Amino acid sequence: MTNATIAASTAAAHDTAHRFRGIIPPVITPRTAAGRIDLESLRRVTSHLLDGGVDGLFILGSSGEVPYLTQEERDLVATTVIDASDGTVPVLAGANEQTTERVVAESQRLADLGIDALVVTAPFYALSDQGEIARHFRTVKERLDLPLFAYDVPVRTHVKLSVDVVRDLAEDGVLAGVKDSSGDDVAFRLLKLATEQLPEFRVFTGHEVVVDGALLGGAHGAVPGLANVDPAGYSRLYASAADEDWSAARREQDRLARLFGIVDVAEAGISAGAAGLGAFKTALQLLGIIKSNRMSEPMRSLGASETDRIHRLLVEAGLL
Amino acid sequence: MTNATIAASTAAAHDTAHRFRGIIPPVITPRTAAGRIDLESLRRVTSHLLDGGVDGLFILGSSGEVPYLTQEERDLVATTVIDASDGTVPVLAGANEQTTERVVAESQRLADLGIDALVVTAPFYALSDQGEIARHFRTVKERLDLPLFAYDVPVRTHVKLSVDVVRDLAEDGVLAGVKDSSGDDVAFRLLKLATEQLPEFRVFTGHEVVVDGALLGGAHGAVPGLANVDPAGYSRLYASAADEDWSAARREQDRLARLFGIVDVAEAGISAGAAGLGAFKTALQLLGIIKSNRMSEPMRSLGASETDRIHRLLVEAGLL
Amino acid sequence: MTNATIAASTAAAHDTAHRFRGIIPPVITPRTAAGRIDLESLRRVTSHLLDGGVDGLFILGSSGEVPYLTQEERDLVATTVIDASDGTVPVLAGANEQTTERVVAESQRLADLGIDALVVTAPFYALSDQGEIARHFRTVKERLDLPLFAYDVPVRTHVKLSVDVVRDLAEDGVLAGVKDSSGDDVAFRLLKLATEQLPEFRVFTGHEVVVDGALLGGAHGAVPGLANVDPAGYSRLYASAADEDWSAARREQDRLARLFGIVDVAEAGISAGAAGLGAFKTALQLLGIIKSNRMSEPMRSLGASETDRIHRLLVEAGLL
Amino acid sequence: MTNATIAASTAAAHDTAHRFRGIIPPVITPRTAAGRIDLESLRRVTSHLLDGGVDGLFILGSSGEVPYLTQEERDLVATTVIDASDGTVPVLAGANEQTTERVVAESQRLADLGIDALVVTAPFYALSDQGEIARHFRTVKERLDLPLFAYDVPVRTHVKLSVDVVRDLAEDGVLAGVKDSSGDDVAFRLLKLATEQLPEFRVFTGHEVVVDGALLGGAHGAVPGLANVDPAGYSRLYASAADEDWSAARREQDRLARLFGIVDVAEAGISAGAAGLGAFKTALQLLGIIKSNRMSEPMRSLGASETDRIHRLLVEAGLL
Repeated sequence: MTNATIAASTAAAHDTAHRFRGIIPPVITPRTAAGRIDLESLRRVTSHLLDGGVDGLFILGSSGEVPYLTQEERDLVATTVIDASDGTVPVLAGANEQTTERVVAESQRLADLGIDALVVTAPFYALSDQGEIARHFRTVKERLDLPLFAYDVPVRTHVKLSVDVVRDLAEDGVLAGVKDSSGDDVAFRLLKLATEQLPEFRVFTGHEVVVDGALLGGAHGAVPGLANVDPAGYSRLYASAADEDWSAARREQDRLARLFGIVDVAEAGISAGAAGLGAFKTALQLLGIIKSNRMSEPMRSLGASETDRIHRLLVEAGLL
Repeated sequence: MTNATIAASTAAAHDTAHRFRGIIPPVITPRTAAGRIDLESLRRVTSHLLDGGVDGLFILGSSGEVPYLTQEERDLVATTVIDASDGTVPVLAGANEQTTERVVAESQRLADLGIDALVVTAPFYALSDQGEIARHFRTVKERLDLPLFAYDVPVRTHVKLSVDVVRDLAEDGVLAGVKDSSGDDVAFRLLKLATEQLPEFRVFTGHEVVVDGALLGGAHGAVPGLANVDPAGYSRLYASAADEDWSAARREQDRLARLFGIVDVAEAGISAGAAGLGAFKTALQLLGIIKSNRMSEPMRSLGASETDRIHRLLVEAGLL
Repeated sequence: MTNATIAASTAAAHDTAHRFRGIIPPVITPRTAAGRIDLESLRRVTSHLLDGGVDGLFILGSSGEVPYLTQEERDLVATTVIDASDGTVPVLAGANEQTTERVVAESQRLADLGIDALVVTAPFYALSDQGEIARHFRTVKERLDLPLFAYDVPVRTHVKLSVDVVRDLAEDGVLAGVKDSSGDDVAFRLLKLATEQLPEFRVFTGHEVVVDGALLGGAHGAVPGLANVDPAGYSRLYASAADEDWSAARREQDRLARLFGIVDVAEAGISAGAAGLGAFKTALQLLGIIKSNRMSEPMRSLGASETDRIHRLLVEAGLL
Repeated sequence: MTNATIAASTAAAHDTAHRFRGIIPPVITPRTAAGRIDLESLRRVTSHLLDGGVDGLFILGSSGEVPYLTQEERDLVATTVIDASDGTVPVLAGANEQTTERVVAESQRLADLGIDALVVTAPFYALSDQGEIARHFRTVKERLDLPLFAYDVPVRTHVKLSVDVVRDLAEDGVLAGVKDSSGDDVAFRLLKLATEQLPEFRVFTGHEVVVDGALLGGAHGAVPGLANVDPAGYSRLYASAADEDWSAARREQDRLARLFGIVDVAEAGISAGAAGLGAFKTALQLLGIIKSNRMSEPMRSLGASETDRIHRLLVEAGLL
């Protein structure tokens, strides 16, 4: 992207900012019991989320099991959700690859399918410093004419995006925003302050149980995996915060935080990753939205006793 | 402590809960330029904090450079602050030692000096699991007849207190509360929910820039190092939150978060620990409350250029 | 792979074991100054290594910058080295992908190009436990009829392969061996002991400066990045160890360990990853084997002052 | 210490070097079933080690449960072992405290009791950088007129001593040597090379199962916890290495590595720390050298089933 293009892009940023706000669930990827992508269930998940009032859809994220999907499966998910949502809300997509050139190739494919924005992590498997990370995002933005969100997820990439680097990239119009799943609420607040002169720059939290506090601190929205299960709850939470009715926001958040207990019901022999995503899938199965809670290989799916416990928590949360 | 004593202790917990709330700064330990504990400056810090409206004083914490203090110096700090505060607010003290028996010995000495509550970390240098950590706190509580707060600081102890263990210890009357400096706001919220049936149990955040969100989420107060510099600001923030005036709380928090930039002014050659604590000391020196910003050996003290930058931030925050 | 196939594969394992031993450098991937794969230089590197007496070639490893290569570039490297080595030694290739199905697809492509063995890591970006890791390797082996080596590199995957899991996979004929770059020499020795009843199972160290000790402890060879620069030195080291002339092995290792100082010459602004691989490339450029020390984006290439220091170390090592 | 004193100290270093070499077990601290230090058993352990031909005794290390011992207990251990060993071999003692001034105080007490050398870690609980760590060791050496060994144990201190800092301290006569329990065999070899111009500087490995490789690489000895159980085995291993009979060294090491399996027999509910030290104590109890395998609080002691498994491994190792 030339400087002229960056300027134009910045001019367009105001619209972008208006489009990207609120609750943007990281859409799960249902599979049939046999292990194939379940397109019908994926369409029902999309409708469930739109009916719940969400403001965007983030496909091919960690909650969407993106590292486990083949290229063909990734394309299938993208085309299905883009078609099912039919332009009602923006579709953001994770271009989940190890390093710059591979991210560019992945992004190009997704761009051709019609997504509205890219979500890109720092390089992984590679061992990068902050300088390389900055060049990584700059190169991706130069090569793709789409709003670019940084996905800060050190539990997976094993590097935290520094506040200084993100602010620089925001000021230069490279990044439209950040999805913060770092678990570092101190850095999150400092980033919000560091970018307060950039009203178009978007800051989203990726954590399910602290959305009220993040919104109080100035976040523009949230990307909570649990919103797959209860999109209406998160939409109410966001609306209360927008109305500055913080007591209502807190009550909704507390209810959702209790519901989040579903990610802890897994017994020994299930990895932490499979436990969390498996809980979302099992809940959606219990709600009648997807047909199977089957996980991508080599993750195990949750069983009967775990399903019972999730059922109980759904009842307590008023969802069943 | 026998079961009967625990019951009596639980009966007393309601009063305890009322005494321990609000802003409880971790009091810094001033030194003279020659390196000795500066008792006169320590008395002035105490007055400065009380004048700022704080609700308690936490001495011998990390901000008090406790790992660097000899036994004699620790006693000197305790007697000085207990005397200077004269019972106006409770004095909590860190019994900072590696393992159980050493913590008990340290606690006994501090108890004899008249502190109001103990603050104890998980064992460190030792390699402990959650079972050993639970036994550690139970033993300390059995041996000392004082309210016991767990100090969760994995950046130093390298172990996170699990929500389940803390909840069990809270239910059994072992812990009166927790000071959470883990940086894990998700676990913090889940702990708050897990102990909501225990109204006497206290949950404090140790992080300077997310106090508004923590209070919104139900925290009973904060133990922010930066409150050494601006106790009145944190007191206003707490009062606004208590009044459910969250907009005012957020504005105050944002101002304090900008002031927190003083911990980042240090140049190369200063460790992260020395940079943060050195900034608090330098600010207090600029405010005329302590005489020297001298750090404990082997930490380096901040110099002229760093002092200039801190001066600027104090002016921007309205403190100079 | 059926049980019958596993049995056949086990029968073939003895030959496999004979083929996979000694010094197997992780081949670097030269680029032209303009950034394209430099096929001519890659052929010269291959000849340089074969002339140096190496026992195998490991392409598409971390030293080969595999996370930075596009699919097309990976294929180009594979076909070029397979062609240039012409069957003189086995060619092992890294199927470097995030999870099982993606590894299988990558492996199939490489298998079709004619490689002799696969080198596969634990899943990455994904958050896997040891059970999922075991299923991952089992599935890859079931789907590909090639010797399978586990690449244990927790600095990149952020999970250590447990001794128990690797031993189980070895006993079941899933793994032909392991390339250990974990830096955990204690686990390395315990793995060697745990598999001593499996004489065909191969254990290689990936660390440049402890090859003599690893061979003394029973390792079957080494995969040292530095062998790109001095293959003859590592071949002599291996030969001395095979002759049980441990004094000679140690002397050669000490010389190579001093030469390894080239990875530390980089100045500020170069990441640790780029510093190490950049040093290998710069040394090969100074030795006249490759044309440019250009790194894959977004890594920076080493400059003039670093090249000077590497030149000096090459002279001290007797290579220039 | 003045420069003149350092010079004198350097002059004395040659003798020091001769005194500190070979097998120096980190002596375990036996307790009675009731939990008190068992002085009689400690005397028997000392005799057992001396009979096994060890070259020194390292008391108050991690294997000696030093973080769990009160000051009185530490003194008791020191006086007992110094008395029981009666000058036959040097006694090194850990001055295990958080920071410089506290280490100095601890060291002075131990020096007064008659130890021959100090073993000191980087500061812990404190958050130190390499500059502070260097000042820490310099200050301790200035204040104590005893050979000073650095104990590099990042699993406990959470900071690795850099090769550059240790080399500088070695060149300046501050450090007489290092006990490396970092598990980083690459850095260990590079440190050995970096100090090869300082023939008096001692490098010891703290790892039980890689002593043969460490000695081949130039280490001057080992401080293996398992040598409490089989001092004669480690003495034979060292003697074989000194004779350059590396095949014999490896065979002995392999036998000892199998015996090291005793640290893995613990069942769920025992921490990793308690499992390892508890195994040494249980083995010594089975060998009739100490009366109880009781651990310091809050660690649990091993039980009957674990004792059975340790018995079997002792038999297999030829010790029973």
